[in-house]
Amino acid sequence: MSDFNSRLKLYQQRIDEALDACLPNGQAQKNKLTEAMRYSVIGGGGKRIRPAMVYAAGEAMDVDQNILDTPACAVEIIHTYSLIHDDLPAMDDDNLRRGQPTCHKAFDEATAILAGDALQAHAFEILAASNLHVNDRRRLEMITLLATASGSDGMAGGQAIDLAAVGNRLTLEQLEAMHRLKTGALIQASILLGAMCSPTVTEDELAMLGRYADCIGLSFQIQDDILDVIGDTETLGKPKGSDEKMQKPTYPSILGLDASRKLALDQHQQALSHLETLGQRADTLRQLSAYIVEREF
Amino acid sequence: MSDFNSRLKLYQQRIDEALDACLPNGQAQKNKLTEAMRYSVIGGGGKRIRPAMVYAAGEAMDVDQNILDTPACAVEIIHTYSLIHDDLPAMDDDNLRRGQPTCHKAFDEATAILAGDALQAHAFEILAASNLHVNDRRRLEMITLLATASGSDGMAGGQAIDLAAVGNRLTLEQLEAMHRLKTGALIQASILLGAMCSPTVTEDELAMLGRYADCIGLSFQIQDDILDVIGDTETLGKPKGSDEKMQKPTYPSILGLDASRKLALDQHQQALSHLETLGQRADTLRQLSAYIVEREF
Repeated sequence: MSDFNSRLKLYQQRIDEALDACLPNGQAQKNKLTEAMRYSVIGGGGKRIRPAMVYAAGEAMDVDQNILDTPACAVEIIHTYSLIHDDLPAMDDDNLRRGQPTCHKAFDEATAILAGDALQAHAFEILAASNLHVNDRRRLEMITLLATASGSDGMAGGQAIDLAAVGNRLTLEQLEAMHRLKTGALIQASILLGAMCSPTVTEDELAMLGRYADCIGLSFQIQDDILDVIGDTETLGKPKGSDEKMQKPTYPSILGLDASRKLALDQHQQALSHLETLGQRADTLRQLSAYIVEREF
Repeated sequence: MSDFNSRLKLYQQRIDEALDACLPNGQAQKNKLTEAMRYSVIGGGGKRIRPAMVYAAGEAMDVDQNILDTPACAVEIIHTYSLIHDDLPAMDDDNLRRGQPTCHKAFDEATAILAGDALQAHAFEILAASNLHVNDRRRLEMITLLATASGSDGMAGGQAIDLAAVGNRLTLEQLEAMHRLKTGALIQASILLGAMCSPTVTEDELAMLGRYADCIGLSFQIQDDILDVIGDTETLGKPKGSDEKMQKPTYPSILGLDASRKLALDQHQQALSHLETLGQRADTLRQLSAYIVEREF
């Protein structure tokens, strides 16, 4: 656990530098749009857990960190664009994100919509255009994976189901299906994009990592829901209890806190079981899974 | 002119079928999000001028129409997502688009935001994943081009400048610079994506076509501004005079109607000059340029 904390710090430092370098810097033509993009991606920091997944999965396949920077930036940029749009008044109507005013509060709604739009385009641009040391066919597969994980069969589709579910009682199965799209798809993409940078990764290994990612995606969401109940605003960077206020279905609201904790730990154990054949090189991925269910913010 | 009208009808029929086939059909899991995506892309029709550009440029380079369907869909999907977001209350706040209620009026704001987001992802997904008969390197270049044309250095950047300009008096140069990003970048991408599907197109030919696209992009915008002054709501599919109502800077407001018409025709002549070396095979592109400055809706 402590091992992963120090590693996460290194990843965070690395990704912050990589994001700063890869975003349009707006110096040539300083304008509100590029400022808003940088504000949301870089300003508040954030846990950078998805980039950490890219790095950890890539390293398990012996991929050089330099190669992993681009997919790590791409997933964090997609994640950030989704936060900007989710925070809009027409969606979750949040004022605070990563401890700072949300994009539409710091700028305005129109700029926040456009910043999200431009960030999404940028994520695909860097995957397609960069000097990624990955062959062309594989890069196309990576773009396909990220696009599918982001669109109507992934993150955007899950967010639509989530919005429709506000105020409704979901079954555990429905809640799980929603989260598999809303947060699970991008988490799985993060793990797989890292591994796909290896020229030697096998289909079997990718399948194992996909199942591992499924498990940590669910445990991540369960822990998020738990922290929304028990965390405090300062460490969360957003108001505590906002799910309940919004009448959003959550794991604690369906299962209660104790059963939610147990389910998260079950997912962690399952995640570990999928790594068995990978041996020692997957140790960081094991620590990552533990970190997800043990984190307090 | 009449030649291009009949050809445009064929292109429209073709792209409508291709769009219908390429969008998520929502039958397996019927939901509001995929309905909203299909409603906006297919529902109102639209001139399909950008897909027509892909087809016309591709045919000038002897590319089979079957190969052009995917980039034609991609540019129309990007264009439609931008219309959905531009129409939102926080942006242009329009109720009518392509003769039908705008997406957020027919559905709701949150769904409209997500439908736009999911459509953008889908455009990149089909360019990367389809059985496009174009080699991998070229496909990556096409994705890069479309992403750049859509993002902060293209369409989204132009829209941000446009929003900032509302109520301000722009110079002709500033207006032109704004439109080069807001509409010009995607029009140029449409022409180039069509031509890039040819395995034999030369860098010189692409450069010529890029300059041609620059000219028709400007004449298209000038004619749009003119029609907003003189057209009627029924043929435009949106309220006449909405630019003036919004205090948007336009060519007629800066130059007057007559000088605007002259500038559009100048751009048309310049567009033709860039096609000279391409000979007879570029005839459809010539007709397209004429159509753009002669159209009445």
